[in-house]
Amino acid sequence: MMKYLWHDERLTYDGTQLSSLFAYRNFSIQGNSIIGFQGPCHVSIEEMVDLADVKQNAHIYSLKMVHFIVEVFEMDLVKTVYIQRILVSLVKEILEKLSVQGVVRRGDDLYIADKKLSVSIATLSPVSTMIHFGINVSSEDTPVPTLGLNDLNIDAVVFGEMLLKEFSDEVESVNMARCKVRGVL
Amino acid sequence: MMKYLWHDERLTYDGTQLSSLFAYRNFSIQGNSIIGFQGPCHVSIEEMVDLADVKQNAHIYSLKMVHFIVEVFEMDLVKTVYIQRILVSLVKEILEKLSVQGVVRRGDDLYIADKKLSVSIATLSPVSTMIHFGINVSSEDTPVPTLGLNDLNIDAVVFGEMLLKEFSDEVESVNMARCKVRGVL
Amino acid sequence: MMKYLWHDERLTYDGTQLSSLFAYRNFSIQGNSIIGFQGPCHVSIEEMVDLADVKQNAHIYSLKMVHFIVEVFEMDLVKTVYIQRILVSLVKEILEKLSVQGVVRRGDDLYIADKKLSVSIATLSPVSTMIHFGINVSSEDTPVPTLGLNDLNIDAVVFGEMLLKEFSDEVESVNMARCKVRGVL
Amino acid sequence: MMKYLWHDERLTYDGTQLSSLFAYRNFSIQGNSIIGFQGPCHVSIEEMVDLADVKQNAHIYSLKMVHFIVEVFEMDLVKTVYIQRILVSLVKEILEKLSVQGVVRRGDDLYIADKKLSVSIATLSPVSTMIHFGINVSSEDTPVPTLGLNDLNIDAVVFGEMLLKEFSDEVESVNMARCKVRGVL
Amino acid sequence: MMKYLWHDERLTYDGTQLSSLFAYRNFSIQGNSIIGFQGPCHVSIEEMVDLADVKQNAHIYSLKMVHFIVEVFEMDLVKTVYIQRILVSLVKEILEKLSVQGVVRRGDDLYIADKKLSVSIATLSPVSTMIHFGINVSSEDTPVPTLGLNDLNIDAVVFGEMLLKEFSDEVESVNMARCKVRGVL
Amino acid sequence: MMKYLWHDERLTYDGTQLSSLFAYRNFSIQGNSIIGFQGPCHVSIEEMVDLADVKQNAHIYSLKMVHFIVEVFEMDLVKTVYIQRILVSLVKEILEKLSVQGVVRRGDDLYIADKKLSVSIATLSPVSTMIHFGINVSSEDTPVPTLGLNDLNIDAVVFGEMLLKEFSDEVESVNMARCKVRGVL
Repeated sequence: MMKYLWHDERLTYDGTQLSSLFAYRNFSIQGNSIIGFQGPCHVSIEEMVDLADVKQNAHIYSLKMVHFIVEVFEMDLVKTVYIQRILVSLVKEILEKLSVQGVVRRGDDLYIADKKLSVSIATLSPVSTMIHFGINVSSEDTPVPTLGLNDLNIDAVVFGEMLLKEFSDEVESVNMARCKVRGVL
Repeated sequence: MMKYLWHDERLTYDGTQLSSLFAYRNFSIQGNSIIGFQGPCHVSIEEMVDLADVKQNAHIYSLKMVHFIVEVFEMDLVKTVYIQRILVSLVKEILEKLSVQGVVRRGDDLYIADKKLSVSIATLSPVSTMIHFGINVSSEDTPVPTLGLNDLNIDAVVFGEMLLKEFSDEVESVNMARCKVRGVL
Repeated sequence: MMKYLWHDERLTYDGTQLSSLFAYRNFSIQGNSIIGFQGPCHVSIEEMVDLADVKQNAHIYSLKMVHFIVEVFEMDLVKTVYIQRILVSLVKEILEKLSVQGVVRRGDDLYIADKKLSVSIATLSPVSTMIHFGINVSSEDTPVPTLGLNDLNIDAVVFGEMLLKEFSDEVESVNMARCKVRGVL
Repeated sequence: MMKYLWHDERLTYDGTQLSSLFAYRNFSIQGNSIIGFQGPCHVSIEEMVDLADVKQNAHIYSLKMVHFIVEVFEMDLVKTVYIQRILVSLVKEILEKLSVQGVVRRGDDLYIADKKLSVSIATLSPVSTMIHFGINVSSEDTPVPTLGLNDLNIDAVVFGEMLLKEFSDEVESVNMARCKVRGVL
Repeated sequence: MMKYLWHDERLTYDGTQLSSLFAYRNFSIQGNSIIGFQGPCHVSIEEMVDLADVKQNAHIYSLKMVHFIVEVFEMDLVKTVYIQRILVSLVKEILEKLSVQGVVRRGDDLYIADKKLSVSIATLSPVSTMIHFGINVSSEDTPVPTLGLNDLNIDAVVFGEMLLKEFSDEVESVNMARCKVRGVL
Repeated sequence: MMKYLWHDERLTYDGTQLSSLFAYRNFSIQGNSIIGFQGPCHVSIEEMVDLADVKQNAHIYSLKMVHFIVEVFEMDLVKTVYIQRILVSLVKEILEKLSVQGVVRRGDDLYIADKKLSVSIATLSPVSTMIHFGINVSSEDTPVPTLGLNDLNIDAVVFGEMLLKEFSDEVESVNMARCKVRGVL
């Protein structure tokens, strides 16, 4: 089961949110979960977990994003990266349901016509694996050319709540797909 | 690494292909792999591994499909179901690159306007996990309303070779994403 | 989550029930589950999975038992044996709540004053791990001295439904206990 | 194998004992182990690993307890929580052997008539999983109503050494139960 | 722990010995184990588990070998192949202690001057992983040029008992090496 | 796949190199890898990860060594200790190919006539498992009697590059051995 919660208050994502039991500490949500909220994104080099970004000194900044923090209480990071990819695919699919065309996924990034929509990372904590996914609401002042939900006329809350629900459903559907087959030789 | 091979001869998929070491026995491909080929699809109830289909006595039949057999030499079926979902997402994305619009994914199924494009299953063998994914080439005589690559003016071989390459790249990209992050607290 | 169901019709346990997807095939319960029912117990040597019993040619027979079939969709049999031990502990605890004194657990067996109350086994299927636990209702004609729920004035259905509920709660409580702690050094 | 040692000197449990290789650093016991000793219990909020307690600002304090530190050199915390539950069940069973009646287990806690006997927690270290279990010797000055071994006329050392031996035997019995069954279909 | 037993009676290895609980069924040895014995080796194509051999129609035959059957009650075949490699390394090292020079290991095979000394395979059973390792005693009538313990003036029983002991010690030493380190960043 | 790199510049091994993503941070090598280089070895007690050494206050010091840092992006330390043992076996085998006789392996140490050739350790990082293996080039001023590659007239670079290649090949060969067998009963 993947519990979910939309948190209605603004929260700046500065990287420290990607720490174990984020949902339990802040929202008393215990177990695998996805939490959504809005707020600026500003991750300093010290807080970055993606060493590819650190090596390139890539700045992660956005005036306003919808953020999602996923926690999975298993220690298999490869599996969690697959979960992350499915999360990113779902974002693309939800945008399509909201009539946005031309969204392209490359790994864990989303683009429209080479403008970047999102940032994402997956990593291990001492007790779990975790994903951050952020999609721009505003596209102003970003370090690379971006597009945001505002540019696409998508309401951030409508989008956020759809993703929470569909991601939770997808995880449940995967768990059930595992429990309906006989083995083969 | 996910090795891949397009097999140019026709092969009927009757369910017996979903057995361990399919790629090694037939094509001397050793290790994680995806094999693509064309041919009819006709799975009898006895060969079905999806008990949901067995319970509904659902007939799996297609005059012509592009088939993919994936083998992953790990025993975690939940992870392999995630890999399967990513494979299905990639099919949708490739169809979009080939200018097909309106493809909708529901779990491990693909639809266009409620016409079914594909069938898929993932399961365990005694030594590995395995996925079958088949997409219709022909939509004639199928037990439910379907659409095929022919209806979409997509060349089966072009499509098949694109998917093999992109799936292999995606798996590699996931494996690399696992190897670039520091842990968090 | 551990789904549970009390099946009200009689069913003879002959060992063939300990096979994967028992709950899904028979009761459309998908996922980790425990199913309870009443019926005779008669397992022939061919159906025995416990080679310790086979080696001793131990006959498993009871005129009437309450049976429980647990399926856990993971492949770690050691973990499932721990789950089995907790299940057996819960049976002892429920009997105590029902005012039965002197129940002693030895491994996966329960005794009162050296009379055997129960049989149990845990094993692997190709897609899951499985537990059978049976507790005598009748103590007549058993191959070793036994005691049954009838001798203890316990209603089999009341007992069975209590165990289903408490086992499901215990599994949930374990899963939640895993998701509330920070790591240590 | 689960090695065990009764340490005869007093030691205050302040939470820092719940760290990896406790048995190896202090007693040169290498491998899975359980160590028992007596001493006060006083865990400050900073040392608490149970965030449920931290959130409630629950104080863990006892004048005198028998403490057990278990270390399991695997990284599956769910399995270790099951091991913890079995440990707690064994405590109840040993108290019964020592003629204490009315012990009730709720999750990882033990009660007699709503008086709390024990505290326990299980968590991950960077190299292992760990359990602390403490049972009151004294019931004076505790933050909630408690009962201790003194109130039950149980000798702490007799109890402690029984638990070490029976827990070690139970773990061995589980490991052996895993190695005597054929698979099922 | 790796239990070991030298079985003094002749036994033909025909492939059927590589099945789960071989040591438990035949010698009442429960848990991880290595069993050694002498006898002919004659594995028909139907009993071969190495599909590389099956594909090449490679005949496995020896008039007399020392055989070892290892069973590890875990499901990670990659790990068991590493265990197999260490077993083969130990054979080389024991031959050196017995003053045999020039033994070369290539994967899981041993050679002296391009004459083959041994055969080996590792695979999964439904409940465990298993290794067969056989070293020629006689080099007569083998399908490829071989050398046997007789040619090297090594007593088969002396060799066999040394390997059992050293393999068991090596496994224990690995298990202990896992339990003496702190983590790093 | 096990990527490998010989780093031609001198680097002192002081223990801090045994930290996650060493190869990625320094050499942009992403994924499982082994890196070889030359330099002094001087590990202070604070940096030691082997608590057996810490307990004995064992000083690790060498004027010049060939060092290897292995990183495996899995969390199973027992498996990585087996990989370490195979690495050490390979060092012995390469020395033999370079005409050095009398190399004896004891666990993860190498000796010639009781003179120590090497040091090694394996541990967990938050995101991977890691191995350090160092073999003396110089045998001067070491805390215990040692022998170095200089004493054996072995060129450190020739040796280092051989080991990188053979270790990478061995890992690949193990991975392939896992993918060629059918299961047994």
